[in-house]
Amino acid sequence: MKVICTKDNLKKALTQASRIVGTTSALPILNNVLLKTEAGQLLISSTNLEIALKTRIGGQIEEAGEITVPARTFSEYIGNINEEKITLQTKNINLLVKTEKTESILKGLPTEDFPLIPEIKPVATVSINTLDLSQALERVAFASAYSETQPELSGVLFQINATELRLAATDRYRLAESITTLTGRGIEAKLIIPNRAVGELLRILGETEQGVEILIADSQALFRTANSEFISRVIEGQYPDYQQIIPREFTTEIRVKTRELVSALKLSGLFVQDNNNVEMKIRKSDQSLILRATSSKYGSNTSLVQGEVIGNDNEIIFNFRYILDCLNHITQDHVLLKVINNSSPAMIVPQDEASRCLYLVMPIKT
Amino acid sequence: MKVICTKDNLKKALTQASRIVGTTSALPILNNVLLKTEAGQLLISSTNLEIALKTRIGGQIEEAGEITVPARTFSEYIGNINEEKITLQTKNINLLVKTEKTESILKGLPTEDFPLIPEIKPVATVSINTLDLSQALERVAFASAYSETQPELSGVLFQINATELRLAATDRYRLAESITTLTGRGIEAKLIIPNRAVGELLRILGETEQGVEILIADSQALFRTANSEFISRVIEGQYPDYQQIIPREFTTEIRVKTRELVSALKLSGLFVQDNNNVEMKIRKSDQSLILRATSSKYGSNTSLVQGEVIGNDNEIIFNFRYILDCLNHITQDHVLLKVINNSSPAMIVPQDEASRCLYLVMPIKT
Repeated sequence: MKVICTKDNLKKALTQASRIVGTTSALPILNNVLLKTEAGQLLISSTNLEIALKTRIGGQIEEAGEITVPARTFSEYIGNINEEKITLQTKNINLLVKTEKTESILKGLPTEDFPLIPEIKPVATVSINTLDLSQALERVAFASAYSETQPELSGVLFQINATELRLAATDRYRLAESITTLTGRGIEAKLIIPNRAVGELLRILGETEQGVEILIADSQALFRTANSEFISRVIEGQYPDYQQIIPREFTTEIRVKTRELVSALKLSGLFVQDNNNVEMKIRKSDQSLILRATSSKYGSNTSLVQGEVIGNDNEIIFNFRYILDCLNHITQDHVLLKVINNSSPAMIVPQDEASRCLYLVMPIKT
Repeated sequence: MKVICTKDNLKKALTQASRIVGTTSALPILNNVLLKTEAGQLLISSTNLEIALKTRIGGQIEEAGEITVPARTFSEYIGNINEEKITLQTKNINLLVKTEKTESILKGLPTEDFPLIPEIKPVATVSINTLDLSQALERVAFASAYSETQPELSGVLFQINATELRLAATDRYRLAESITTLTGRGIEAKLIIPNRAVGELLRILGETEQGVEILIADSQALFRTANSEFISRVIEGQYPDYQQIIPREFTTEIRVKTRELVSALKLSGLFVQDNNNVEMKIRKSDQSLILRATSSKYGSNTSLVQGEVIGNDNEIIFNFRYILDCLNHITQDHVLLKVINNSSPAMIVPQDEASRCLYLVMPIKT
């Protein structure tokens, strides 16, 4: 193999590829990236057997071939090169990397040891705007669990119908849901993408502005952008039917400035005990939300947030971190906090009809 | 005590104060900051018995008094307040902190338990420009040791004479020296300021643009800026007479672009064995520096840096990290690397006469 390519293209592809490698030394080939000439391009593949990435970059292919080299060393090396033009050339199972001022031999491993990245046989393909998908994932991903006993919660649920993609994540104490319109026609499908894959997918989507296609297969999903294919296994299992627990009516609603509620929660949060409990009182008389926390060690705090109240006075206790997590993923200026009582989920929605996202948080029972 | 002050002043003072507190729970009072009204200002003091800081901020003193409260909680709390006007008021040994929208009670400790910060009896006082002192400290501090057996190396040497301050730091493998002109008349003095104190001093100097006075006492030094006094113990012991090991003549000199040498070292550095050794060859014939490293695990690298050579061809092995550390503290475009042989220190100097700083690095003997 002999390929001449530009540093920027190679660097970008390797930065992504080197994140999707094995982390144990039990199977050293998984630490490697596979370089392969294919249809006039250089194909760069990496996998940890759970997720896999294939990226194509342009280049001048002087000689076809393939090689595997350690992903992180190669990526770091290319990242530190200052010249634009890079020649990659195989020397047996090693790779000669050459620019005008520097050259290296990177030790490789036999390409036949590199795991085969399975070809997907899609049962359905849907299209979506890249930025829409990124934003929707950002809004929900934080709410998922890391659970070995309930593996189905350790991921984000993708629910597709004819027109939209509905994402959801929950750890049973809180739930996040975000709805996005598809750019093409959809098909009924449900799949759970693991947390780790969602994190990597977000990074990959950040690098592209074009659309993304989701190819759905039995036990895998493939996300295809202009230059890359990202493959993830899907989590087997039944996702809880969360729709039935979303309350339709509330006793009390308050509309507040998002940043003001964030500040007040941070102040009260300094005075919580280990349980993170903050008491929240919604008061109709002066249209306000009053937060209160007391710590036997540090002291106590009372903070007031002005708002607009609909319904009765109410008083509920929350783990303040759960509320803060939701607010930190809301970019809108105002939010609505809707509550019933200490044993029913409360709802937080950004006040912006277009956003189509909601959060549920379970209060602390007293 | 009752004081009304602005958030920004209080926040800045507390951020600094909360860094200079004890870290063990053995003496809880050392985690606290002492607030005290004094001459129409609010004096904020903290100490960990090794170093101490006193900062004064303006405010409306409605009632004189003093109190101690946990430094970090107080600092974090004030940092999260969004309003400008803050009222601080003692309630027995607790502190009521009040703004329009939030109020807290912070639990205090008796002020009589707070350690006395010793008054310095200076034998000499010298003045220096704040930015000059910061820059000189930044240039040398990284080269000091963290040595229990040679405590005198675990700090920066301040050598003062009639006109200048000469700073030095070494860990016996490398040495950094930087010379700065005093703004007033100096006096002969030598003192070693501990690493930790140098780190905090740099942060404090970063907050002021005015000059700094150094008050030298027997076992302490005080750095006085417009609003603060920073006190550190000095390290007892004899600093090595490093002047005698600085070579005056060299066999080979090469002048290179700083950033080019940095890049080449980073590339070679990816291929070193555990010993970090990089071989550097200075070649008169093509006016270049050639770096070479070989790793049994990853492969090998050869990089070339163009330069201007004076003297003979030469070949020396360095721990590349020592060279990189020096270069990372050089802001000038060009550096001179001056070498003799593998058993004599090499010198690195930024090529800018005004900078008055130099680095020595010991090569690896072969």
